[in-house]
Amino acid sequence: MFHATPEFPRGFRCASRNVGLKPSAKDLTLFASDIDATAVAVFTRNHFPGAPIILGRETMRGGSLRAIIANSKVSNVATGTRGVDHARRMAAAAAQELGTDASRVLVSSTGVIGVPLPIEKIETGIVGMATELQRDPMVGAEGIMTTDTFPKALSAPVGTSGATITWVAKGSGMIEPNMATMLAYIFTDAQFDAPTLDRLLRAAVSSSFNMLSVDSDTSTSDTCAILANGLAGPVSESEFLSVLTAGCIKMTETLARDGEGATRLIRVTVREALNDAEARTVAKTIVNSPLIKTMVHGADPNVGRLLMAVGKCFDCTVHPDTTNAWINGFPVVARGERLEFDDAVVRATLSRDEVELEISLGVGRSTARAFGCDLTKGYIEENASYYSS
Amino acid sequence: MFHATPEFPRGFRCASRNVGLKPSAKDLTLFASDIDATAVAVFTRNHFPGAPIILGRETMRGGSLRAIIANSKVSNVATGTRGVDHARRMAAAAAQELGTDASRVLVSSTGVIGVPLPIEKIETGIVGMATELQRDPMVGAEGIMTTDTFPKALSAPVGTSGATITWVAKGSGMIEPNMATMLAYIFTDAQFDAPTLDRLLRAAVSSSFNMLSVDSDTSTSDTCAILANGLAGPVSESEFLSVLTAGCIKMTETLARDGEGATRLIRVTVREALNDAEARTVAKTIVNSPLIKTMVHGADPNVGRLLMAVGKCFDCTVHPDTTNAWINGFPVVARGERLEFDDAVVRATLSRDEVELEISLGVGRSTARAFGCDLTKGYIEENASYYSS
Repeated sequence: MFHATPEFPRGFRCASRNVGLKPSAKDLTLFASDIDATAVAVFTRNHFPGAPIILGRETMRGGSLRAIIANSKVSNVATGTRGVDHARRMAAAAAQELGTDASRVLVSSTGVIGVPLPIEKIETGIVGMATELQRDPMVGAEGIMTTDTFPKALSAPVGTSGATITWVAKGSGMIEPNMATMLAYIFTDAQFDAPTLDRLLRAAVSSSFNMLSVDSDTSTSDTCAILANGLAGPVSESEFLSVLTAGCIKMTETLARDGEGATRLIRVTVREALNDAEARTVAKTIVNSPLIKTMVHGADPNVGRLLMAVGKCFDCTVHPDTTNAWINGFPVVARGERLEFDDAVVRATLSRDEVELEISLGVGRSTARAFGCDLTKGYIEENASYYSS
Repeated sequence: MFHATPEFPRGFRCASRNVGLKPSAKDLTLFASDIDATAVAVFTRNHFPGAPIILGRETMRGGSLRAIIANSKVSNVATGTRGVDHARRMAAAAAQELGTDASRVLVSSTGVIGVPLPIEKIETGIVGMATELQRDPMVGAEGIMTTDTFPKALSAPVGTSGATITWVAKGSGMIEPNMATMLAYIFTDAQFDAPTLDRLLRAAVSSSFNMLSVDSDTSTSDTCAILANGLAGPVSESEFLSVLTAGCIKMTETLARDGEGATRLIRVTVREALNDAEARTVAKTIVNSPLIKTMVHGADPNVGRLLMAVGKCFDCTVHPDTTNAWINGFPVVARGERLEFDDAVVRATLSRDEVELEISLGVGRSTARAFGCDLTKGYIEENASYYSS
């Protein structure tokens, strides 16, 4: 369903540059719509939102965007009123470059927390970017990378009027989004009003980005925004939601696979939970357990850890007698007891690039799926010196 | 306040042996009281308690113990009714060896989950252990080690009647106790009735073992039991609680310091929280954050992560404007903003063997302290192949 090479919907373009925040890699991206686009966003629930989030909540009240300006390397978080002033200057610089109003520009910053944003470098560096706008979303994805090992963009057709949805995202550590994720931008030429777009975005995010956890730490900068410029006209809501959700899940898996230090994608499916909230809690708990993550990393068939992780959901309804578990479809636990199995078989299936952990709780009819990655020495290496390197 | 070399209170002895569960290290410990001791215990809240926990809850209803029998290497968890039968046989074997009743024997097993307990090896191996009982608690500590790098025992005088409290514990991974911790046994010759002893134990555990987290994973075997044989007569409750708590905190710090792969002890103190529950939640969240743990490991002055971790306590009362933070007494955050400081100074203080992280929330009067350790490649190494090695 996805295009082999990601492309933008009609009317969207982007550019990215190095403006001196990083030594040489791209560190500033400008996304632009030719016309005002209906836009909604969801942001982090962290109590210490970055300055761009504080400004972004204000900007999004307008329900309309012409551009997104995003820098990497410095997150402009814990920087006080000066930080918010810097975010406003960043919006103003992008607005001036594009000939629009600052109230139509969403600002994002990602990188180290608590370091002043080098706003002059951004103001100087942005000049002329409007002339470089082009149609490859991967170019925009490059400018927002931090510890990501590759740029991330996707696109897919939607509906019958030739509309397109395009996803551009970044993020690989400090990732347990809540109400949103790291930086994820979605562009479409389908036409929706803001309340409908908001409802569709929240529904898609709920089963995708909000079920992702790389390390259980919730960023202060999480942002997921969608821009709909309407150039392709109306699209059926159900068709749109279906493609939107599929793309968000695909992007979520891409982010999990590129989690800091990660070598494997972990999908956890919890079935027959008492209700949706408990299904989500158990799935998230399993995907976050360091002992599960290291078990997958080592392909070590220590399957008792699945029960440990389910069992520490103290407030969920769990009965050992009705709990079953599978790894990549292979049964490892039945009625709360570890099954006898050939270690080599489980070891082999745990060695796959993608590991599916399934738990059936046998107490209800709710299902949830969470996405994560293994925990490796690479994560330790990256995070023991992130600030300094 | 602690003895230079740990010793038992009057009337307690122990022995330990290798009975063939491990290749050569000690794997079975017997603790015995010369007379029936008043006894209470707290156990894991995990939904998949091990067979010894299921049996232990029944045993502790009696309020009295003569012995504890504990093996390492295999935890007898997720082993069904056969597992409970094995736990009963273990209690019976110890009772027969000591000439008491199985209802007076608490059983513990620690190690891999989901593997049948080699009960015959234990039944055979225990024979004659009664003749080896001696007065050094460290001997008992040796037999219950799993990934611990050293045996753990402590003792201290209490009160004016010459009474003693002795702590013996193990644990270094799958440690976020709830209602109890890994295996921690406390022995005293002070005299208390069971309800009083229970109240004192719960109070001490609440501010010590229950505030410990090595990796946020809650074991299926956590047990903390206290035996009071009364041989030293009554002791003032407040004096006893004071020493009991101090020893539990000291043992908690010892367990944190020996956390799997750990190189540093982390203490997190949260002050001026709205209430005790929120103080505890914020302290636990910080001590569990992989990004905080790796920052400490790398002595990387990425102090913005402290705000990220406080900020992800969505349901707690947090105001950026009143939030301050210190590392080993050095101020790093004031009113939600990162202070300007000399990186080298913070790097030096983060390089200490013990790192104190302090947060003042400025919204109330409650304080809590949590204990943990850094996250290192050693943790990954141990847990990527725990089952197989």
